Amino acid sequence: MPHTDTICAISTAQGGAIGVIRVSGPKAIDAASRIFTMHGKPLHERPHYTLTFGKIHAADGEVIDEVLVSLFRAPHSYTGEDSVEISCHGSTYILQQVMSRLLENGCRLAQPGEYTQRAFLNGKMDLSQAEAVADLIASTSAATHRLAMNQMRGGFSRELSALRDKLLHLTSLMELELDFSDHEELEFADRSELSKIASDIEHTVSRLVHSFSVGNAIKNGVPVAIIGETNVGKSTLLNALLGEERAIVSDIHGTTRDVIEDTVNLRGITFRFIDTAGIRQTTDVVENIGIERTYQKMNQASIVLWMIDSANSESIIQNSEFRNAVSDKRIILLFNKSDQVTPEQREALEQAFADIDAPKLFISAKSRTGLEELESLLVTTAALPEVSQNDVIVTNLRHYEALVHALDSIHRVQDGLQMQLSGDFVSQDLRECIHHLSDIVGEVSTDSVLQNIFKHFCIGK
Amino acid sequence: MPHTDTICAISTAQGGAIGVIRVSGPKAIDAASRIFTMHGKPLHERPHYTLTFGKIHAADGEVIDEVLVSLFRAPHSYTGEDSVEISCHGSTYILQQVMSRLLENGCRLAQPGEYTQRAFLNGKMDLSQAEAVADLIASTSAATHRLAMNQMRGGFSRELSALRDKLLHLTSLMELELDFSDHEELEFADRSELSKIASDIEHTVSRLVHSFSVGNAIKNGVPVAIIGETNVGKSTLLNALLGEERAIVSDIHGTTRDVIEDTVNLRGITFRFIDTAGIRQTTDVVENIGIERTYQKMNQASIVLWMIDSANSESIIQNSEFRNAVSDKRIILLFNKSDQVTPEQREALEQAFADIDAPKLFISAKSRTGLEELESLLVTTAALPEVSQNDVIVTNLRHYEALVHALDSIHRVQDGLQMQLSGDFVSQDLRECIHHLSDIVGEVSTDSVLQNIFKHFCIGK
Repeated sequence: MPHTDTICAISTAQGGAIGVIRVSGPKAIDAASRIFTMHGKPLHERPHYTLTFGKIHAADGEVIDEVLVSLFRAPHSYTGEDSVEISCHGSTYILQQVMSRLLENGCRLAQPGEYTQRAFLNGKMDLSQAEAVADLIASTSAATHRLAMNQMRGGFSRELSALRDKLLHLTSLMELELDFSDHEELEFADRSELSKIASDIEHTVSRLVHSFSVGNAIKNGVPVAIIGETNVGKSTLLNALLGEERAIVSDIHGTTRDVIEDTVNLRGITFRFIDTAGIRQTTDVVENIGIERTYQKMNQASIVLWMIDSANSESIIQNSEFRNAVSDKRIILLFNKSDQVTPEQREALEQAFADIDAPKLFISAKSRTGLEELESLLVTTAALPEVSQNDVIVTNLRHYEALVHALDSIHRVQDGLQMQLSGDFVSQDLRECIHHLSDIVGEVSTDSVLQNIFKHFCIGK
Repeated sequence: MPHTDTICAISTAQGGAIGVIRVSGPKAIDAASRIFTMHGKPLHERPHYTLTFGKIHAADGEVIDEVLVSLFRAPHSYTGEDSVEISCHGSTYILQQVMSRLLENGCRLAQPGEYTQRAFLNGKMDLSQAEAVADLIASTSAATHRLAMNQMRGGFSRELSALRDKLLHLTSLMELELDFSDHEELEFADRSELSKIASDIEHTVSRLVHSFSVGNAIKNGVPVAIIGETNVGKSTLLNALLGEERAIVSDIHGTTRDVIEDTVNLRGITFRFIDTAGIRQTTDVVENIGIERTYQKMNQASIVLWMIDSANSESIIQNSEFRNAVSDKRIILLFNKSDQVTPEQREALEQAFADIDAPKLFISAKSRTGLEELESLLVTTAALPEVSQNDVIVTNLRHYEALVHALDSIHRVQDGLQMQLSGDFVSQDLRECIHHLSDIVGEVSTDSVLQNIFKHFCIGK
């Protein structure tokens, strides 16, 4: 069902030399024609994929701007609808005046992401591709860009499509067995053959599920917790790490900076530093809430920077509970304030922590010594694989959750096959698995799911 | 002499859904072709004023983005050169990658305003039109937009052109007289006829010179000085006036806010509030520097808001020098803190200031009473004429100065004619007058003048 209303929005940020207004919908060309004059043929007689120079007029005929109008006709446009793009001088006043004129002439203001939503609803892209558009615009590094570009260009969709073909094949085999189950003389693919297909599917879904930890780390940053006692120098270290990259960090995070924790781009990899409360008195009998919280935060981290005050390391190493809590993490032991201790004291420290299987580094956050080595160590400890534009890696939480459900279903299918359950049961699980995969590409999405996805887009996309 | 180098720049502000990169110069199409793949014909075989969908590639072949490329061929482009506009997803990462690719393929980064400078140098517009482009982008109100649009579309240039025709006509008449001055039998246009033409020219130039006070007030704001004693409530009033419009003010002034004084848009008119030092002890025998400065600042203002503390008005009204200083200004008398006085005290105040010929208003800046009336009063006192898109009003200081020089020259021409000076002398002044007018449209501008003009443009325009 095509849309009957025509939407318009300013698609460029405020303040440039050029501003672009997008108009899409059945009346796009009509609305533009009403406010635009040019030499030669009127817009609706011109071929699509052409540019026309002319003037946008106010209601009283005054010239608002001299502009270039790009013309697109359904279905050969981003949205799949008739569309017009008006390229104006980048003055906020002009852009607002042109918008007013469009609103007066049958258009309405577009919702965030509405152009991409229409592209999806008109079959120009599936839902996972549409979601990748927002990721692409937000991408700030080669790795995030590659993942979003592959997803937008349908790499993930093709993988899902191949998966669904396999699932449908398996389903049809199951249902064939079901339909003819009375005819015991007929031979079907034996269950081991079915198990093999199921295992193949499980393998792919499982790989996608597990790719999310890499995808999420690339997209949102490798989570790093800095832990240690209150005066050990955590904020000094954080500031030292952020300091060199502060400008880039502000550039990148813009509006989301208030929700995301401090992130820093070290040698192409984004690290997200999780704020942990300083541990005050670990020798206290009563565990304080600060430590509880620190343990919880630590669980979100994939790397723990365990900071120790080289000159005053006594209290913390007493606490075995603390040492247990970090034992399953990738740890880097940082002996801070190392400029304040003698070589003998260093040796004693190394021995005291000899049982901690982790790289150990002597640094001084204050005088910025050892930070280069720390950066290298963070990058190697993160152990993020090089991704290419052909790698399918899940970066989207919604996709991840759908894949986890799909994996559950396929595990039930495998169990059913193994336990020789009736085809009815197994088919049900297969259908569920297909349903979850269809969810990702938007074949079964409800309006509320769509709204929730597109409201996070920017206006004009 | 056409440019041999090809320039590129991001022409949109950072952070939108769409980003546009402009490429202009002899290698524009070639450079774009090297990094762009599409279905069908290559770019250089396509007609101009067309859009082509395709992909921009990294050196290793990876896809940087799916884009639309707009194609323009010399001289039918903004710059008058071969040009390409690449419309990408608005990701800073993508835009920077595409820029890198262009720089690797024979383009260089454009200077601020270089596209418009090329448009001027290639004869697409004269200098006053080129300058109007920057004004148009910076325009924030209907009035500033109208003036810039008229100037960009050549309204001012046409007026200057008509003026120069008249001056050339007058020059040729003078030189005819000069050439045949030995042949006393020949009759020439008598000097009263020449004086009439000169007076006609003088009238037009003079009107343009005088239009600058309006043009400048529209463009930079009507200058308003708030004066009064230190505790009279000046900053409270300023904050109250700014407060309601603070968001708009920040929007409008962006980067220039640090050099421009506080401005506020009241009912479509921009007011620029000039900071004056509070007057401390006006009854002091020794004039202090603060008052001197305030007097100087007052001279820049076209409106003086003279604030009086209703509850404590004694000291200031003693000072006759102060009252003299404001006597030739458009004054608004503001009795602030009027909520602290009785009706009788109000009456006494009005009587005490009865000899000041100015509107008088009782307000309370703190409780925001009387501010609506003050706004109305400011707007009527500013007495800015309604401007239409056909009005030629000078808004540019460089133009104003050239016109003042032209006016001087034409005055000397008039004097010469009246004093029956030899045609040699008069012709010299006529040529000077023409020179000054030519300066405005850029016919006689030097490189350094051009550099100075275009360096204030934004990159990408």
